[in-house]
Amino acid sequence: MSEYLSKISSPQDLKKLSLDELDELTEEIRKKIILTLSKTGGHLASSLGVVELTLALHTVLDSPKDKIIWDVGHQAYAHKLITGRYNKFSSLRQYGGLSGFPKRSESEHDFLDTGHSSTSISAALGMACAAEHKNEDNDVVAVIGDGALTGGMAFEALNHAGHLGKDLTVVLNDNEMSIAENVGAISNYLTKLRTEPMLHRIKEDVEYLLNKIPAIGGKVFNTVDRVKDGLKYLVVSGVLFEEFGFTYLGPIDGHDLEAVQENLKRAKKIKGPVLLHAITTKGKGYPPAKNSPTSFHGTSPFEIKTGKSKRKREIPTYTEIFSDALLELAAEDNDIVGITAAMPSGTGLNKFKNKFPERFYDVGIAEQHAVTMGVGLALSDMKPVVTLYSTFLQRAYDQVVHDVALQEAPVTLAIDRAGLVGKDGETHQGVFDYSFLRHIPNLTIMAPKDENELRNMLKTAVNHPGPTSVRYSRGSAIGVELDDEIKELEIGKAEVLREGRDIVILAIGSMVMPALKASKKLADQGIEATVVNSRFVKPLDKELILELSKKCGKILTIEEQALQGGFGSAILEMLSDNDLNDIQVSRMGIPDEFVKQGAQDILLGKYGLNQTGIINRVLKIIED
Amino acid sequence: MSEYLSKISSPQDLKKLSLDELDELTEEIRKKIILTLSKTGGHLASSLGVVELTLALHTVLDSPKDKIIWDVGHQAYAHKLITGRYNKFSSLRQYGGLSGFPKRSESEHDFLDTGHSSTSISAALGMACAAEHKNEDNDVVAVIGDGALTGGMAFEALNHAGHLGKDLTVVLNDNEMSIAENVGAISNYLTKLRTEPMLHRIKEDVEYLLNKIPAIGGKVFNTVDRVKDGLKYLVVSGVLFEEFGFTYLGPIDGHDLEAVQENLKRAKKIKGPVLLHAITTKGKGYPPAKNSPTSFHGTSPFEIKTGKSKRKREIPTYTEIFSDALLELAAEDNDIVGITAAMPSGTGLNKFKNKFPERFYDVGIAEQHAVTMGVGLALSDMKPVVTLYSTFLQRAYDQVVHDVALQEAPVTLAIDRAGLVGKDGETHQGVFDYSFLRHIPNLTIMAPKDENELRNMLKTAVNHPGPTSVRYSRGSAIGVELDDEIKELEIGKAEVLREGRDIVILAIGSMVMPALKASKKLADQGIEATVVNSRFVKPLDKELILELSKKCGKILTIEEQALQGGFGSAILEMLSDNDLNDIQVSRMGIPDEFVKQGAQDILLGKYGLNQTGIINRVLKIIED
Repeated sequence: MSEYLSKISSPQDLKKLSLDELDELTEEIRKKIILTLSKTGGHLASSLGVVELTLALHTVLDSPKDKIIWDVGHQAYAHKLITGRYNKFSSLRQYGGLSGFPKRSESEHDFLDTGHSSTSISAALGMACAAEHKNEDNDVVAVIGDGALTGGMAFEALNHAGHLGKDLTVVLNDNEMSIAENVGAISNYLTKLRTEPMLHRIKEDVEYLLNKIPAIGGKVFNTVDRVKDGLKYLVVSGVLFEEFGFTYLGPIDGHDLEAVQENLKRAKKIKGPVLLHAITTKGKGYPPAKNSPTSFHGTSPFEIKTGKSKRKREIPTYTEIFSDALLELAAEDNDIVGITAAMPSGTGLNKFKNKFPERFYDVGIAEQHAVTMGVGLALSDMKPVVTLYSTFLQRAYDQVVHDVALQEAPVTLAIDRAGLVGKDGETHQGVFDYSFLRHIPNLTIMAPKDENELRNMLKTAVNHPGPTSVRYSRGSAIGVELDDEIKELEIGKAEVLREGRDIVILAIGSMVMPALKASKKLADQGIEATVVNSRFVKPLDKELILELSKKCGKILTIEEQALQGGFGSAILEMLSDNDLNDIQVSRMGIPDEFVKQGAQDILLGKYGLNQTGIINRVLKIIED
Repeated sequence: MSEYLSKISSPQDLKKLSLDELDELTEEIRKKIILTLSKTGGHLASSLGVVELTLALHTVLDSPKDKIIWDVGHQAYAHKLITGRYNKFSSLRQYGGLSGFPKRSESEHDFLDTGHSSTSISAALGMACAAEHKNEDNDVVAVIGDGALTGGMAFEALNHAGHLGKDLTVVLNDNEMSIAENVGAISNYLTKLRTEPMLHRIKEDVEYLLNKIPAIGGKVFNTVDRVKDGLKYLVVSGVLFEEFGFTYLGPIDGHDLEAVQENLKRAKKIKGPVLLHAITTKGKGYPPAKNSPTSFHGTSPFEIKTGKSKRKREIPTYTEIFSDALLELAAEDNDIVGITAAMPSGTGLNKFKNKFPERFYDVGIAEQHAVTMGVGLALSDMKPVVTLYSTFLQRAYDQVVHDVALQEAPVTLAIDRAGLVGKDGETHQGVFDYSFLRHIPNLTIMAPKDENELRNMLKTAVNHPGPTSVRYSRGSAIGVELDDEIKELEIGKAEVLREGRDIVILAIGSMVMPALKASKKLADQGIEATVVNSRFVKPLDKELILELSKKCGKILTIEEQALQGGFGSAILEMLSDNDLNDIQVSRMGIPDEFVKQGAQDILLGKYGLNQTGIINRVLKIIED
């Protein structure tokens, strides 16, 4: 079925193919990606958009001597298929299989592990500088989307690269989208470049005109000179990038393999940094993805013919619960505003956007700005809800410390995809947020046991006069019936779900219901556990926890988070600070390692973070 | 002595003064700032540079209805003097006194607590949006230096502000400096704007010329039309900002009070975001500061006549030790490169810069890029030493997780100003780095007890095949004699400095020597302490610590860091994980609060983190 693709084991093999053959290869690659992703799910639209770009890069450059750095890396499927990973491709994003992102451990053609956006130019610049230090003659190319270009880090790198003037090519893969529709002035600027090709010619035209001007005396003469001097600043295409010290090439059709090849060759010859602007179409070659690139950004398994998702979900996701709860609260409170960083769909804020467009801000891929803009709103008596994935909140750690918490700005951090996220793997796991937030003074940190509690915590957060965070899991909630009313919770109060003499289980967030179920099974074996829905990581329910600890003497903490510095550590600290040194504390959570990809239930099972794991752990504690 | 200044109790009082009187006021303000800072130390050069700007802002705007946001905030001394803080000004940066930065708790004219750079536009945009939501008619102005403009976050905010088009004025205070000399393409661009005022007129000139062109047929006619269409893209000044959706005004002389006033009035009238480019001179009005703005960025007390520092230091600082050690190592290892984010002087990398300019990178105020550029270098077999203050490393937390640690890139994070930093106060304390680094897998975290150990740890770090961090304090080291040779340490091995039966003191970094001294005093009282120089926060010396714990049963941990999630918590976690639940652990460190300004010794004393405090704590533990 695949005439060429199956025979490509390295980029060298591409170089033997004619343009026509490469053209056929693009079709084979697209088919393979669509077929595989219809089963595995994954980042379909982006990868379909860069097939020609990938082949052009790998025919003009000489990987692994030359280095291609894929920003974010979710568009690297074609790259994976032609760098020796064709046979493993069906394992994409599966436990133990190929990663959905570039991984240095997978291939000598992967130079940077990515997943978060806007890192490629920095790393590529470092590699270009190293090549110079080492006197090595290799090219470094960063491929970055127009969405990722709005991340401040990319700007920092452009600014520095332009200043240094090293040889470096940045391919701007402009598909007019980040994950959602693009926002920002840069995006408008790119649109202008795309839609006004006429600008290319302006410079020549002005020169032609100037030559037509009769010399009619001093004034005009001086003026002509001045204008000629000024000509170099005429905005032909790409002046913005030229001002950054880059040579701008483009815009070119990123699906015209030959044009991309030619321009890459041109870029190789130019001294100093080059920005090659290539226009591509997300979802190219697969109409359902092309027509709905947002839903095919990251997709679950789907039916190829229609593009319809095969996933059936009966229980709503936490994201959906959050989305509806925020709408409900905002309907009654005009001060609530929603902020997302390029994720209106992923975070569930799209409903809010539609209902309250004037109170909705999508800032682009710009988490730092998202948080501090929230501070500005909060300090002006609005109630901002900044909605980010746990892993992306990492980008705004300093803003949470320095802008939110220091001045006690009542910003709500709604932390989605907290805990294990599954197939996106180690770059996307949300397992550090308790650890990087817990030491920040003034912050209230919550996690709900189920959908009603998420709703209640959200209301508690937006009405609390200080900064708060609420974290919740990716995927389906518990499936409980929703209460009629959303209620505020008392800050720092935990909830005892079950009482028993043998052990006290302090569970938080997603681990509460598994702990409760486990305790019921344990009761069948005669082991009676107290189960506490802790609700707050900060402040802890000190009174309750100390009392239970003294009474029982055996504590088990459970969290879907790193064991270092998390909820369990908070319990250890509190007991130690209160001179309760004789309590036996055991902690369950994620050990000190990056968690690779895999279905959430597989990963939870691996770390014992489910009913069975909890039962086993309790039995071990009791037996010891 | 001060005719006007002492009578100004709010910006309203300024409005009664004539231009000439305001002019005299600027002199009084400068005198007051110079006189005060000669005693207190502080950010002299920046504050002297914006005196006219401050008066212009406060005469044109109507604070507190209108909001002025000072980026970083170290330039806000004149602002403080005219907003009711004249009488308290001598307490500047002292314990219990006025903060060196804007503080909402100090004045209704301070709208955002700042200290870290590049936050102002985000917060101001949030405030401008809030004003619209609330239907309030107020102006919001962010004042940002050209140095802070290179921070990615400022770019994220510009990009979003330009997109939204809300009324917002950004005053670009262009003094051609960040903390050190500016770097980056944006800086070059600003230089061009400053030095080629001719560009202002280009657009008019071209129009004039076009009108001179005779109509000589179709071709020219079309071309004229095209050119006219294209005229709006002519690079008159500030096209970069215009492309971002801002109206650009300037450049103007920021010391011409009337010109600044006029342009601020113009900005008020313009719909949408405006960037007003004002050129100022750091250190204006005080020759020693003007001639050496870097050393007068943040200065210690000085002699007014000469500008000479009054501080006498006999013992070298940790920064100086680091600086010399890096030189020594780099002389023998060509792969070592040094990276700083606008702090060659503060971090001690200036010597490295002079000796090895080709291996030195100052990336500007761009910590995210600094770290990930380091990753690019490290993955290309260089040995990057990324040198940042602890508080600024917070900006690059995600880059440490996602770029450094995930792929085990052998980057050395040299963390200066770790622990309490003194007079800069809560925005600059470096008390969270153990807590935000410790849960990151693959990272080795060290802190030296003295200067020799800093040297040894630096060598250990640069030669370690994985990522490492070394943190050290602001100010003088211990004063020990330097060893002839720099030696590598064994990763994860602690050092027992003293053995005793009554208690085990596990100290780390700056707390080791005070603990050792305390233990000697305690011995006089018959209390024998084991003192461990822990060296590593990660990995811990498990074998030693477990053995000592079992033997003694009483542990005291001491760190100059937040108590949440830090070194002491690591010890609690390890004991718990090893079922040593009957050990009595006490922890000393910084409690859960932001630490205000004050001399380092005062603050350390406040938290008991000195010899006396340790003795008292041990006595309490032993007596209990």
